[in-house]
Amino acid sequence: MSLPAVSPAWLETGIALADAARPIARHYFRSRLAIDTKSDLSPVTIADQTIEAAMRKILAETLPDHGILGEEHGADRTDADYVWVLDPIDGTRAFICGVPTFGVLISLCYQGRPIFGIVDHPALGERWIGGIGLPTTWNGEPCHARACTKLADAYLFATSPDMFKGTQREAFARLETRAKERRFGLDCFAAGLIAGGHIDAMVETSLQPYDYCALVPVLEQAGATITDWDGKPLTIHSNGSIIAAATAELHGEILAALA
Amino acid sequence: MSLPAVSPAWLETGIALADAARPIARHYFRSRLAIDTKSDLSPVTIADQTIEAAMRKILAETLPDHGILGEEHGADRTDADYVWVLDPIDGTRAFICGVPTFGVLISLCYQGRPIFGIVDHPALGERWIGGIGLPTTWNGEPCHARACTKLADAYLFATSPDMFKGTQREAFARLETRAKERRFGLDCFAAGLIAGGHIDAMVETSLQPYDYCALVPVLEQAGATITDWDGKPLTIHSNGSIIAAATAELHGEILAALA
Repeated sequence: MSLPAVSPAWLETGIALADAARPIARHYFRSRLAIDTKSDLSPVTIADQTIEAAMRKILAETLPDHGILGEEHGADRTDADYVWVLDPIDGTRAFICGVPTFGVLISLCYQGRPIFGIVDHPALGERWIGGIGLPTTWNGEPCHARACTKLADAYLFATSPDMFKGTQREAFARLETRAKERRFGLDCFAAGLIAGGHIDAMVETSLQPYDYCALVPVLEQAGATITDWDGKPLTIHSNGSIIAAATAELHGEILAALA
Repeated sequence: MSLPAVSPAWLETGIALADAARPIARHYFRSRLAIDTKSDLSPVTIADQTIEAAMRKILAETLPDHGILGEEHGADRTDADYVWVLDPIDGTRAFICGVPTFGVLISLCYQGRPIFGIVDHPALGERWIGGIGLPTTWNGEPCHARACTKLADAYLFATSPDMFKGTQREAFARLETRAKERRFGLDCFAAGLIAGGHIDAMVETSLQPYDYCALVPVLEQAGATITDWDGKPLTIHSNGSIIAAATAELHGEILAALA
């Protein structure tokens, strides 16, 4: 399948979405205010809902024919060729705990394939953007995954040991002992660090489309490889288990270790 | 033992140390330059050594009678009543991986007891300061640990599951299942988050004096409790296993769970 290049209008809209999300996320991050005492909502829930509503408003105004799949407000015209997949706050637990590595994930899919992604970190002021015809940048500067090809040399990240259950837990246990270093706790920030050439690999499971779609173009256009645990390309319909690696060789070794 | 209050001169010197460390840490963070190709040192090692040398120079000029215990350059007059305990980069692995939660730890001990601490995060621009007679501040604003008194309500952090071995591993396994949430990966940043009222507890082991001395005044002067795993006050001679908790009640429950 030939994938369309990201148009200037889509790029502009994507950046507008990220720019709208950032101040809202920063406003509620580490907030202790009882924002709405009637509804008993937590600051992170209010941030999630407010950001997604702001993003949907922009999309309705600029690209009304595109579909939307969002974490908070569900699916809207997801049978359209072009569907925006939105996670207003990725890393909810980090956000709750005052840890600034949480992110905002924005992606555009064409017939279910992610073609454009933005990984934005409002509290850190770091933003990765990548897409078809759009080599990945970090805060506007070109960036690239590094040349690690061996698991024994790899810095590997996963969000939490708790996400792996049953046979996946056994598979991850086989994998982690063979990496140079295995660390926990970064959510989508780990994808940015791979695209930026700071770490080498990321393995996750139980993700939703809004958790991983934005990572695909950001990583692929930085030279990295990302698939599901069967080595298949990720689509909006994938099962939510992902392997991301700085090089195809490293990706192959992780795939084999998990098999 | 009555502990002396932090004098204006010591406060000024402590801030000068943190201010000297910050730009050096930022310069080497995410640096890919082969800074010194002859010595084959990594950027984090160069940052560690350069920061500690800069801090020792300031101390030699301002408080020449005080002792120094540093991670990189060892012990100097540590039989003095006043000893500065320095960790130029706490969270070496975070630093190496491009994760901005690494910190600079500065403390002053009186007869082995930490009386003044600074936890500074150069890449995040966050700084906690606390000491005897000096209620804890975050970036100059007063801050306080929150009121969590029950393990079942507590957000608990540890740097890595790998640090716990043998009976400590079993003890931590008992503890973590009883917390509301257990997360990994923050090094000294977790102490700041407790002092700032964002999380509730932190359990670590195998620490060196330069890893924990600065945390003691920052946490205690924010209303939190920190001891070793036997419930004893921390000194420069403690065994490196620590429990920090937002309240004395929560600390007691963690102590009992680990016993």
